[in-house]
Amino acid sequence: MSKRDLEYFFNPRSVAIIGPSRFPRKFGYVILENFLTSGFKGEVYPVNPKADEILMKKCYASVKDIPKSVDLAVIVLPAQKVSQAVKECVEKGVKACIIISGGFSEIGNKKGEEEILSIAKEKMRIIGPNVFGIYDAYTNVDTIFAPRYRLERPKKGHMAFISQSGAFGTALLDTLASYGIGISKFISIGNRIDVDEVDLLEYLAKDKETRAIALYIEGVKRGKEFVKTLKSVTKRKPVVIYKAGKTKKAKEAVKSHTATIAGDERIYSAVFKQCGAIEANTVEELMDFTKAFSYGLHPKGDRVQIITNGGGFGVITADEVEKRGLKLAELSSRTIEEIKKRMPPYAVISNPMDLIGDANAERYKIALDFALKDKNVDLVITIILIQLSLIESDIIDVLAEMKKKYEKPIIVCATGGEFTMMHRKMLEKNGIPTYDTPERAVAVAKALVDYASMH
Amino acid sequence: MSKRDLEYFFNPRSVAIIGPSRFPRKFGYVILENFLTSGFKGEVYPVNPKADEILMKKCYASVKDIPKSVDLAVIVLPAQKVSQAVKECVEKGVKACIIISGGFSEIGNKKGEEEILSIAKEKMRIIGPNVFGIYDAYTNVDTIFAPRYRLERPKKGHMAFISQSGAFGTALLDTLASYGIGISKFISIGNRIDVDEVDLLEYLAKDKETRAIALYIEGVKRGKEFVKTLKSVTKRKPVVIYKAGKTKKAKEAVKSHTATIAGDERIYSAVFKQCGAIEANTVEELMDFTKAFSYGLHPKGDRVQIITNGGGFGVITADEVEKRGLKLAELSSRTIEEIKKRMPPYAVISNPMDLIGDANAERYKIALDFALKDKNVDLVITIILIQLSLIESDIIDVLAEMKKKYEKPIIVCATGGEFTMMHRKMLEKNGIPTYDTPERAVAVAKALVDYASMH
Repeated sequence: MSKRDLEYFFNPRSVAIIGPSRFPRKFGYVILENFLTSGFKGEVYPVNPKADEILMKKCYASVKDIPKSVDLAVIVLPAQKVSQAVKECVEKGVKACIIISGGFSEIGNKKGEEEILSIAKEKMRIIGPNVFGIYDAYTNVDTIFAPRYRLERPKKGHMAFISQSGAFGTALLDTLASYGIGISKFISIGNRIDVDEVDLLEYLAKDKETRAIALYIEGVKRGKEFVKTLKSVTKRKPVVIYKAGKTKKAKEAVKSHTATIAGDERIYSAVFKQCGAIEANTVEELMDFTKAFSYGLHPKGDRVQIITNGGGFGVITADEVEKRGLKLAELSSRTIEEIKKRMPPYAVISNPMDLIGDANAERYKIALDFALKDKNVDLVITIILIQLSLIESDIIDVLAEMKKKYEKPIIVCATGGEFTMMHRKMLEKNGIPTYDTPERAVAVAKALVDYASMH
Repeated sequence: MSKRDLEYFFNPRSVAIIGPSRFPRKFGYVILENFLTSGFKGEVYPVNPKADEILMKKCYASVKDIPKSVDLAVIVLPAQKVSQAVKECVEKGVKACIIISGGFSEIGNKKGEEEILSIAKEKMRIIGPNVFGIYDAYTNVDTIFAPRYRLERPKKGHMAFISQSGAFGTALLDTLASYGIGISKFISIGNRIDVDEVDLLEYLAKDKETRAIALYIEGVKRGKEFVKTLKSVTKRKPVVIYKAGKTKKAKEAVKSHTATIAGDERIYSAVFKQCGAIEANTVEELMDFTKAFSYGLHPKGDRVQIITNGGGFGVITADEVEKRGLKLAELSSRTIEEIKKRMPPYAVISNPMDLIGDANAERYKIALDFALKDKNVDLVITIILIQLSLIESDIIDVLAEMKKKYEKPIIVCATGGEFTMMHRKMLEKNGIPTYDTPERAVAVAKALVDYASMH
């Protein structure tokens, strides 16, 4: 690994936590606990001159007192103590440093950042300050300072997430975890005095666990490099971007949040498009789109077949398909005939295809199998109201089988409570993306089609 | 009660279930079980000539054999047997009848419906056919034929929901229940050969448990009456409408779903507006808006104050407020001064007001109390990332207190997993509406402001 390599952040052999507290709810304590209890494989060293041990781990007075080498340092100190700690890290030969502490340019303290940078320059890479840091689902590097019983961590998956806002990012991680959706890496970049979105896009493009990248930004730092990098990354992997700070007042808020100039929204949208990235217009879309991309779904065209067991949902989905500029697939007469032969007479074999409220998994299997086989269909949106009383859990097997049998994407819309959610999690485990509403499912279909048509 | 009164549907003294099966997953069995086990207070009579008893209840061969009077009949028979059952109900003097059975005009069988109507006319009111029927959270009339372990029923609340699509409606009920949101009445109207949305709007306008009405329609049946009724109902209670079947293909699907002509979408939108109703553009909005209205929230103007503990969420919310045409409130200098005095120096006392990630309930209390007191503020959107480690459950008490102290609406955005959801349910119990994302919270604020400005 070169000194510029970000690998030390995500896969360090040893970590020093600088400034952990003895009090359980304090940020440093939570971070130390994450490293000690969540399966991180490397060495962990707490640094706190005022404590002998925390969480039964011996504390060192300075990072320089640690007897072995340190790859990653996590600094959780008040702002005014950070530069001294950074200095000691550099002297110790630490390779990568995450500065959690706030109190820098976001409140006008630009000087503090310049000081840190001048100390670390070329010798140690820095993420932060003013960040939540990193969560890596594979190596268990976890500097998110909210306890796991409050903020669940997602399991291993293939979606990476770069967020300029830490609170925003971690709230979404928590949401993803509760839906059973996995991620590869999460990085909160905050004031980004060193490592920024460009570095991370480059790094994640090569990361083998990452198949799709979500990016929340309030403004980019290095315009030219951003465009160049984004263009090249989107050729390898889908990148979904949510740009905050679009309106006048929000731009002002951005300044006091991450000290960023938000810029003109139309320019941003045009640039994203030109670079082959997908823009998310809502928070939901950022997650919804990236999840589907991380499952590796790539439709060959824009013709959507809708299959449902609830007529109303079929109608709404058809509306959305048309509104979003996708096409409703037209099944061949042969396909229609084959399906009709095997269905009760009251089923509506059209588009939307309504299997009716008494449909079971077998009916879905017939419908999906023939629809996916039809060369007029590029992807299928399946609405499954699993709370209706004749569908059993074998619907999961049917969908998993169809996903394996055909390369065409299957997107599921399932609206409901706990029973529905239980089944949705099983589908997600099988790499089938599920959504709450028809609108969200169709928006995802459009994003998949858009990316496929650009690349 | 007059013979035309719908009260017999929602508060019958006795119910006959005609056509229940002995097999637990069959629709009639589930409905019978609902009446027997969910707290319904009236008499329940199963009618099935082929069974002696079902669920330990004596079966009658015909509704006419029931020794006492019957207010409500629920018919769960194959289509060809329905008219005979209707005839017997009329002869028995049954007041109200829900025909669950499908197989009528939605598959071209218009004749079957005409036959039923000619038998029942002026003597018995009918909901259906092709419906899920009714769920009344207060009287426990429940003809939803999905078992409760699969489809949860919402608790008592103040939102009524009329849905032309049964599956659509019940899937949303299930969702509402899982979020801890209550309803008053749910009615699936299906092919509506007799009772339609106009009758129900009139009825619900007078219903004391109902404070707001959600309506899903694919097309209205009696245009003139609909307009007249809607105009008068919206003066008393907010009505939120989702119109499906807007695009060409979706209109075709509507025909085979509920045998409805979907009509021109622009005309519908104009009519809704002119009648003082709120149009929902997505499934989410239908539920999100109606919930807030059912909590009785009525802002006096359009000036929104944003309070957050996550900067990114503040920025996104400010963007949305501006995009949706609401105003960001400008706090008086007095208010700003009072809040600043009580906050740490790094908190951003502006709009959005960022209490920063280490905010606790006390900081929220100060912010809310002064902001709500300020005459430049009409409503508050509060973002609470409760997974951040210094907020405790006493945030619930703070919000409940503020809601009581001030008449101004408080809308909460809380994004997260299980821990967050637990707290959201507590807020909902206190009549404070909570939403997953800033976009949804702001959309609700806009709907509240729109309704208030029209009425």
